[in-house]
Amino acid sequence: MIQRLAVIGVGLLGGSVAKAARVHGLAREIVGIGRDARRLEPARADGTLDRATTDLVAGVSDADFVVLAVPVRTIEGLLEAVWRRAPDGAVITDVGSTKAGIVRVAEGLAVTRHLAFVGGHPMAGSEQSGYGPARADLFQGAIVVLTPTDATEPAALKAVTEFWEALGARVSVLDPDSHDRAMAAVSHLPHLVAYALMDGVARFEPAALDLAARGFKDTTRIAASDARVWEEIFLANRAALARSVEGFHDALGELRRLIDAGDGDALRAALDRIRKRREALR
Amino acid sequence: MIQRLAVIGVGLLGGSVAKAARVHGLAREIVGIGRDARRLEPARADGTLDRATTDLVAGVSDADFVVLAVPVRTIEGLLEAVWRRAPDGAVITDVGSTKAGIVRVAEGLAVTRHLAFVGGHPMAGSEQSGYGPARADLFQGAIVVLTPTDATEPAALKAVTEFWEALGARVSVLDPDSHDRAMAAVSHLPHLVAYALMDGVARFEPAALDLAARGFKDTTRIAASDARVWEEIFLANRAALARSVEGFHDALGELRRLIDAGDGDALRAALDRIRKRREALR
Repeated sequence: MIQRLAVIGVGLLGGSVAKAARVHGLAREIVGIGRDARRLEPARADGTLDRATTDLVAGVSDADFVVLAVPVRTIEGLLEAVWRRAPDGAVITDVGSTKAGIVRVAEGLAVTRHLAFVGGHPMAGSEQSGYGPARADLFQGAIVVLTPTDATEPAALKAVTEFWEALGARVSVLDPDSHDRAMAAVSHLPHLVAYALMDGVARFEPAALDLAARGFKDTTRIAASDARVWEEIFLANRAALARSVEGFHDALGELRRLIDAGDGDALRAALDRIRKRREALR
Repeated sequence: MIQRLAVIGVGLLGGSVAKAARVHGLAREIVGIGRDARRLEPARADGTLDRATTDLVAGVSDADFVVLAVPVRTIEGLLEAVWRRAPDGAVITDVGSTKAGIVRVAEGLAVTRHLAFVGGHPMAGSEQSGYGPARADLFQGAIVVLTPTDATEPAALKAVTEFWEALGARVSVLDPDSHDRAMAAVSHLPHLVAYALMDGVARFEPAALDLAARGFKDTTRIAASDARVWEEIFLANRAALARSVEGFHDALGELRRLIDAGDGDALRAALDRIRKRREALR
């Protein structure tokens, strides 16, 4: 049982962590920390938070479990203050979509003071943002990737694993760099492509949007994602993202060459090979 | 009331046309035409078709309304036989995703013999194919684009419009080239991008697919589409598709430059502008 759970950033993910912890009775007290008191108010008013504060220091100083749920570079920036103010024995984790930079900052801080940190990334969420769409069952059945390193205490990994499992998630363990490379491929690249697809059509063929059907809408759904969240992810993971974009470019270039060459048989064979890969994913 | 409706190609779209026509009592007799008798059998067995035949000539020779529902280049290839065998007064239409080539072939044939043709494209369907997923309500609320030209008889346009409206669709009229340019942007480009996204990840980061969540799955859903259908669409509309790909490349290149430059403010502004465009689409 967590005595005091501090959630930094009460948006879609942080709000869902707080709601799920509340529903599952995981913490005696839940404190929400944010920059804007008015935006914390709904989560306090509906009973998800026992306490809401804009004062990070006050929020974490007596917390035994801290979840950072703000954009990834903001997490990197806030870790130092958390490190300075969280009590001995506190377990710190986060929900950021990139892990190498965050883990590096945390391990740098751990040299000055020992605190238990495990990087985390719940594979849940949507293109929506803010506390409004937060749900207690957001993590039910979701995969949460934890990224311990050689420096991570087994007890901390165990505590964070149990936390997510109690919220209904399945925990998967990966090193931070492998995580970031995998996410560049299956999450960050699709977001970048969806933004570019939406932008390209909106700028060069806007009238066509009146005819957009489910194919276009599904393919670009995640282009409605929060701009700050994705700005920070793209910048934090730009090296791995660049490699994923190259792979995408190669694949697109190959299909375009078959189309330009009018090579129907080879094109059909390529599309059918890809179709089978996609169907295997269901 | 149609006396004899002939549907050439009884897959997802053709099967749905037949089912919807049956449910709405639009035709006295419905004939399905296909290359493979076994694949026509389920539609005959469930009462959707009154008659199933692999003989195109026999199928259309006494039809007063003919719907071609095979891949687009196959439609172009079959039109001549339909033209030769359909009775005087028959109305011919199709459901192909590209229109300029099909309309050009039909108008070439109309020089030799007058027959009523109107190109059509129901904005419905999915990544699924074959008769199995065909549904009587597939066109309910969908937009069907018809592409008449100066050569189209008003009576033919009226007949095809009434046909689709009776199936629950809303009809929109566009010239064939404008249709193809718009579809290149909001349908053919997203399909090509989805195929390339699926292929790039499967080839260069296959292990990451284990972590693919809803974002990747939605963005690549249409990469499970039928290979022959899309081979023919990409080839038939390659010029307009190439222009749409350029617009996409420009948009992607601009976002990549902002990421490479680490220009967070400009990147966030761009993503937020795109987010608003996407949200306006709901």
